[in-house]
Amino acid sequence: MNDVKYVYTFGDKKAEGNAKMKELLGGKGANLAEMNLIGVPVPPGFTITTEACAHYYKKGKQEVLQLLDSQVRAGVRSVERDTGKEFGNPDNPLLLSVRSGARASMPGMMDTVLNLGMNDVVVKGFARKTGNERAAWDSYRRFIQMYGDVVMGLKPENKEDDDPFEVIIDELKEERGVKVDTDLTTGDLIELCSRFGRLIEKRTGRAFPQDPWEQLWGSVTAVFDSWMNARAIHYRALHGIPADWGTAVNVQAMVFGNMGDNSATGVAFTRDPATGENVFTGEYLINAQGEDVVAGTRTPQQVTKEGSQRWAKLAGVPEEERRTSYPSLEEAMPGLYYELDEIQQKLEDHYRDMQDLEFTIEQGKLWLLQTRNGKRTGQAMVRIAMEMIDERMLNEKEALLRVEPGKLDELLHPVFDPEAEAKAREITKGLPASPGAATGQIVFFADETVEWAQKGKAVILVRKETSPEDIQGINYAKGILTSRGGMTSHAAVVARGMGKCCVSGAGALHIDYNAKTLSVNGSVFKEGDWISLNGTTGQVFEGKLPTRQVSLSGYFGRLMGLADQYARLKVRANADTPEDAFTARNFGATGIGLCRTEHMFFQGDRIVAVREMILAEDEAGRKDALAKLLPYQREDFEGLLEAMEGLPVTIRLLDPPLHEFLPNTEEAIQFMADDMGIPVERIKEHIEELQEINPMLGHRGCRLANTYPEISAMQVRAVLEAALNLKARGVKVDPEIMIPLTTVGNELKMQRDYIREVAQEVFKERGDSIPLKIGSMIEVPRAALVADNLAKCADFFSFGTNDLTQMAMGFSRDDVGKFLPIYLEKGILHADPFRTIDQDGVGQLVQTAVKRGRETKPELMMGVCGEHGGDPASIEFFHRSGLNYVSCSPYRVPIARLVAAQAMVKEGANIREKVLAGVDSC
Amino acid sequence: MNDVKYVYTFGDKKAEGNAKMKELLGGKGANLAEMNLIGVPVPPGFTITTEACAHYYKKGKQEVLQLLDSQVRAGVRSVERDTGKEFGNPDNPLLLSVRSGARASMPGMMDTVLNLGMNDVVVKGFARKTGNERAAWDSYRRFIQMYGDVVMGLKPENKEDDDPFEVIIDELKEERGVKVDTDLTTGDLIELCSRFGRLIEKRTGRAFPQDPWEQLWGSVTAVFDSWMNARAIHYRALHGIPADWGTAVNVQAMVFGNMGDNSATGVAFTRDPATGENVFTGEYLINAQGEDVVAGTRTPQQVTKEGSQRWAKLAGVPEEERRTSYPSLEEAMPGLYYELDEIQQKLEDHYRDMQDLEFTIEQGKLWLLQTRNGKRTGQAMVRIAMEMIDERMLNEKEALLRVEPGKLDELLHPVFDPEAEAKAREITKGLPASPGAATGQIVFFADETVEWAQKGKAVILVRKETSPEDIQGINYAKGILTSRGGMTSHAAVVARGMGKCCVSGAGALHIDYNAKTLSVNGSVFKEGDWISLNGTTGQVFEGKLPTRQVSLSGYFGRLMGLADQYARLKVRANADTPEDAFTARNFGATGIGLCRTEHMFFQGDRIVAVREMILAEDEAGRKDALAKLLPYQREDFEGLLEAMEGLPVTIRLLDPPLHEFLPNTEEAIQFMADDMGIPVERIKEHIEELQEINPMLGHRGCRLANTYPEISAMQVRAVLEAALNLKARGVKVDPEIMIPLTTVGNELKMQRDYIREVAQEVFKERGDSIPLKIGSMIEVPRAALVADNLAKCADFFSFGTNDLTQMAMGFSRDDVGKFLPIYLEKGILHADPFRTIDQDGVGQLVQTAVKRGRETKPELMMGVCGEHGGDPASIEFFHRSGLNYVSCSPYRVPIARLVAAQAMVKEGANIREKVLAGVDSC
Repeated sequence: MNDVKYVYTFGDKKAEGNAKMKELLGGKGANLAEMNLIGVPVPPGFTITTEACAHYYKKGKQEVLQLLDSQVRAGVRSVERDTGKEFGNPDNPLLLSVRSGARASMPGMMDTVLNLGMNDVVVKGFARKTGNERAAWDSYRRFIQMYGDVVMGLKPENKEDDDPFEVIIDELKEERGVKVDTDLTTGDLIELCSRFGRLIEKRTGRAFPQDPWEQLWGSVTAVFDSWMNARAIHYRALHGIPADWGTAVNVQAMVFGNMGDNSATGVAFTRDPATGENVFTGEYLINAQGEDVVAGTRTPQQVTKEGSQRWAKLAGVPEEERRTSYPSLEEAMPGLYYELDEIQQKLEDHYRDMQDLEFTIEQGKLWLLQTRNGKRTGQAMVRIAMEMIDERMLNEKEALLRVEPGKLDELLHPVFDPEAEAKAREITKGLPASPGAATGQIVFFADETVEWAQKGKAVILVRKETSPEDIQGINYAKGILTSRGGMTSHAAVVARGMGKCCVSGAGALHIDYNAKTLSVNGSVFKEGDWISLNGTTGQVFEGKLPTRQVSLSGYFGRLMGLADQYARLKVRANADTPEDAFTARNFGATGIGLCRTEHMFFQGDRIVAVREMILAEDEAGRKDALAKLLPYQREDFEGLLEAMEGLPVTIRLLDPPLHEFLPNTEEAIQFMADDMGIPVERIKEHIEELQEINPMLGHRGCRLANTYPEISAMQVRAVLEAALNLKARGVKVDPEIMIPLTTVGNELKMQRDYIREVAQEVFKERGDSIPLKIGSMIEVPRAALVADNLAKCADFFSFGTNDLTQMAMGFSRDDVGKFLPIYLEKGILHADPFRTIDQDGVGQLVQTAVKRGRETKPELMMGVCGEHGGDPASIEFFHRSGLNYVSCSPYRVPIARLVAAQAMVKEGANIREKVLAGVDSC
Repeated sequence: MNDVKYVYTFGDKKAEGNAKMKELLGGKGANLAEMNLIGVPVPPGFTITTEACAHYYKKGKQEVLQLLDSQVRAGVRSVERDTGKEFGNPDNPLLLSVRSGARASMPGMMDTVLNLGMNDVVVKGFARKTGNERAAWDSYRRFIQMYGDVVMGLKPENKEDDDPFEVIIDELKEERGVKVDTDLTTGDLIELCSRFGRLIEKRTGRAFPQDPWEQLWGSVTAVFDSWMNARAIHYRALHGIPADWGTAVNVQAMVFGNMGDNSATGVAFTRDPATGENVFTGEYLINAQGEDVVAGTRTPQQVTKEGSQRWAKLAGVPEEERRTSYPSLEEAMPGLYYELDEIQQKLEDHYRDMQDLEFTIEQGKLWLLQTRNGKRTGQAMVRIAMEMIDERMLNEKEALLRVEPGKLDELLHPVFDPEAEAKAREITKGLPASPGAATGQIVFFADETVEWAQKGKAVILVRKETSPEDIQGINYAKGILTSRGGMTSHAAVVARGMGKCCVSGAGALHIDYNAKTLSVNGSVFKEGDWISLNGTTGQVFEGKLPTRQVSLSGYFGRLMGLADQYARLKVRANADTPEDAFTARNFGATGIGLCRTEHMFFQGDRIVAVREMILAEDEAGRKDALAKLLPYQREDFEGLLEAMEGLPVTIRLLDPPLHEFLPNTEEAIQFMADDMGIPVERIKEHIEELQEINPMLGHRGCRLANTYPEISAMQVRAVLEAALNLKARGVKVDPEIMIPLTTVGNELKMQRDYIREVAQEVFKERGDSIPLKIGSMIEVPRAALVADNLAKCADFFSFGTNDLTQMAMGFSRDDVGKFLPIYLEKGILHADPFRTIDQDGVGQLVQTAVKRGRETKPELMMGVCGEHGGDPASIEFFHRSGLNYVSCSPYRVPIARLVAAQAMVKEGANIREKVLAGVDSC
């Protein structure tokens, strides 16, 4: 174990690591090494590997620190050599920075400790050496403050409190009667250091460490510890990052941007991260340390002159004032600017991607502290990728891989006007269940939502949680806000399907249906009050915010065209209405992979007929009620098939248990009784009769069709009559009938025979016919296992991976909230299996069914409908599994098209995403 | 299609079929053919194949009758040749019987039409020819009555009514002032025929058919139709017989037992069907037709003299009266008796099994009408099998296969506590028709029996006699009591088949269906009164008697010993208490395969501590409550481990969702609130919080243990402390800890690590240790799929096939009642998958897990716990799948031991049960 190399040094244009070693050195460390190798000036330092961190969690602190001791000491010596300074030597002190750096950038972990190596003696030597006493004490003050915070854990005692160090600063400023930090004298800074030390001792019972080595080990340990803090765990859970990756630690010689007017510090992007425009852009401050640029206490200046002039125009600063008070780096330090500009071009060319840089100028010498691929908006991401093709920086395949599918979402949903959003009062935050922005008046009931909306009002439907009864309300609302339920709750799933903004599980909300009020943190909102939801962030704002529809830009269209050239996997959409169908076509869907016919049952008068059917005592009564539904369904299908003219439309027969169509509140039951003229008691009896202990595994899907065949008869008749009506009008149609919840072959056979009988009847009546495909959902584990048999009776398979996941894993989607968060936190699972398919388990069933189905029918068409059809990682898996298409919500179609292309490119290049450590790693 | 042979003739010691053709000819038809081939006198006839019946349901009546026409006519001609009589010819009429006959004997289907071919003209010719006018008209009367009932459907109009034909007979007897049928004159019988004809015309609108061919086709069609009547469907569903087998139809020349005092008819068994004793036994009546023997209207006489004397003793008939009024066949017709005795020995030797015979003596000539393997009690079955080994009729393997595992149940049934029985008041005595003891409340109708039983009541079904319509009632009753009928009456046969206690022919009983009373010797019992039946002695007692377990008899013990010599699969028991454990050991269990620890949580004060734990707000609160539970659990485990000394005991950690431990009624909640001194509202809040939409897929199993590890910590500690206490006392222990509901490997790993930690703690405290096995349930489909990984963390697997079935098939066991009966009726499924494992689907998962688990650990111990572990078909599958053991309820252990042996014998002989047509037969 002692032979393992845990420390990699870099500096003076040499490095032991390089950019390819991200797994071992973290992103930051690998790039620091790489920059050295390509001749970019970087303060010397070393990286402690991620393996050391993993080891820390396996073997414990003592053992790892022992293992690291000699290598870290050697690393420090190497920095001392490169800098000619000495760690802890007051006469020529080497100061260090310590930064965490995981494989993937991870907010939530400890970020940075600066000026490490300072102590009561060194500060004086540093002052002597630099001749800048004020800067020395300011650096020391900052070091104590940072170390106290991130290493010794001095946080505000209550979340409402301010940072305890800032409180001391404010007190001193009041004592001294000064307004801004810069008015504090050197003496004041010395006083601050002393007060900070006392605070630390009082709060922690330990003195601020004077020994530089103790400081260093403390900081390294703090970085390791921060890998497992709650925020980091939460972030990993959210992003599917395995806990055993660990973080690297970067230790680097300090350089100072606060050494006077020939010093500066800044951040820059090689292209505009908001728009993607190919212009160098960035901000800097003279005589400052990095944190000052981002802290917002001073107004940062622009790096380029052009940027500076744009900024001044927006900010209303006259050119004269700009040039004197806020000059660009290009104007203030032209030589260094050109050096920086050259470096940024070099870095972008080298990394072939837009770079996010950190730089510091120390007394006229430029240092790069970091480079990394820059975060960017979805819009910028697409533009940069497309333009880099034109610039021959990337080929088409590379450009396709460069686009993050999930970020396309931003381009497909309305957003708030950013300025208005920045000023708005956030009242609470929930889960970002369905992206987009919505503003409207609060309404608490689905039926009232419909009424309000029909009067032309914009409504936000606010519920504790929603149920299938609320579908119409959801459809009419601008956005949905719920106090319960997760990312896969009913509200979330339905809203995503409709491309409707939704914030779910906002637990701080207290909803009182009787009083029609919503209270949160002491504020009370009534029905009719305006609120705004950001479904992309989960934020809920008070009042009405203006929204902006993003139009699909030219770059985006070009990206989609390119994707379709490469993709093998087709993309269909889940759509229940002609409106959804038009949206889907517009986004490039090649068909409808799932039309949930039951959604049609809730609209208007239909629900009355549906309920009549359910309450009917016999088949004759059911048939009477179904006869009333027939014209509605026919009309629905006519609209849908016409909207998709010529493209396949997969229509799933009735799936949910019948009790979902009955009311579930006293009021609604009373209303139904009055409306239908039948006793309340009879309705209640029926509701009780239909009650199930585990409805998900109950009387639903084709079990309904096989026990009440008259229901599917009506639906099939409606589909075929609609299709024949369209055919008569010269519209091409391609309907496919899909049997849900098939478990045994006999079910499928019986339904298929029955459907064909009905079809023959309709064809005979009409004297005309159409080809009709009949297929099966594969959503019960057993169905996947006997797929070779099912294939004999099926023209196609469609994987219902939601239910397949529920049954294969034994996870009720509605109840998983009780333990899934803990499972993600503890690393038992790496991702919510309802969001990203569990390839090892559920995926096996998919692949088994594909294999066996194709053994029977080599050309059997197979697709996926359900939430996973819109999830990038899952789509890639479906591509690899040999499916023909995925079907997802219309708003996910472009994302799926891109992923399909990426999957093909990766297949060609034999690229396989790094697989997470398995969840079955016994 | 026209070339297919649908009709197989037999007669005059020749036959086209034989005993091996049961699938095609049905059991009865195949044996009729076989008897001819071995020289037994059988009235000539022909069999219409089961294929014709299947065809009837596929292609419809018209097409099949057309196809059959010429072959049936040829069959009739063949019978005419053999008998020298002519069908429909009044001068020399051939009369026929028509009987159904499926592959397996099936009560509930149409049984018999006799004397077919009679009409207003033929009756006269028959009278002339036989010189017995009275017998001719009596035969015609019976024919009209039977045909009217089974072919033309004349049933009582209300269930309280008597048979409409019997009503007419009773009216005429009253008119004539006579008491018994035999007092009616020939003229009276002619009058009856005419009144029967008018009744038929009035009720059906159709005349009774005079054309013999119309009669024949009507009867054949009625047999086909009866295959699909409700009772037959119900019976098939109950016995897993596929609907597509179909029934054969046997058409045979009539022979008459009612042609005077040199004629007789009877039924007999080659050994005693109740005890298994190797004595020829049977009943007969002189001058009677077969139905008279079973109808219970006349007291049947015994075939052998010894039997007759035994009967007389039981019935209290003096020897003199016996010899004159109820002589045995041996005494009355010694020559024919010896012929019959020879034939019965020949048949038993030929079939190498106890035979159930029907015979008729027509004017001094003996005819065999049927032979089949005789139904017998469980006790008789075991004795016969064991004795046949001694007689060298069977070898050990054959004898093992001869025992029906399900029927062993009867031997495990309770008997009355002898002391209580001795003191009980015997109210009457009937025939000991089916052994065992039953105590329950009197109910007079089958449908009401079902209702009462479903409410959890113990019911004794009391009838004058039973009919196939009563099957379901019999199934639900604890016991059956009839006032008419012998040992071979319907009630007796059916009850023995079901292993249900039955006392038949208790002639002293007077049953009034309208008043719902039962009077006997001056006492009157009403519906709902308690009585007790001893089916082994025929005694009926007043009131409720306590029952006691029967001790295993010598033959049974020998069978079990033999089974264990052959079996590879071991048998463990599911047991939660020391009592269960003792029973299990007593029945030969080799360990406990499942101890459900949660059952222990409900007893006495424990539930209070359990609820405290659930209501606790934090881990500390939960730990306090768990500390209270610890001593209870330790005591439980100590008892259990001690009872199983030295044998393995698999203890499953807490499995059900916590809400199962909270009360679910207002009263119970109020009680709990008062008891624990906490507000009702808080309890309700908790209940609501724990509510789940699909609890079966919710927060349970190891999901509880992984979210509240302190619960499993307590349980593991209890197990280990119990084990160490016993070890200290010198008791050998072998505990195994089982993790329920494992879905991903990480769950298992985390639990295992945690359990080992607790174990180390306990071992350290006690300064002693024991080997501890930790294993996993395989009950989630995903777990089966990743078994190779799970095996790395498991010392054993135990298949929870109940839950595995629920999840793999998507069937909630609690809700499946909504569609499973319809699925069985429609043949979508052939058996309840919760009773008999679905080999094609769920079985695949079992086999996959076995294969993958053993790839990782070739010696991995694997068993099954759960209902299927006690089901013969499933046990055989588990044997074939290579499991090490099954675990079932203690009372099923002997059955499982037998099946395990049979499975091994079949494996050796390469016998594979006929597999039902698959349920995936697309």
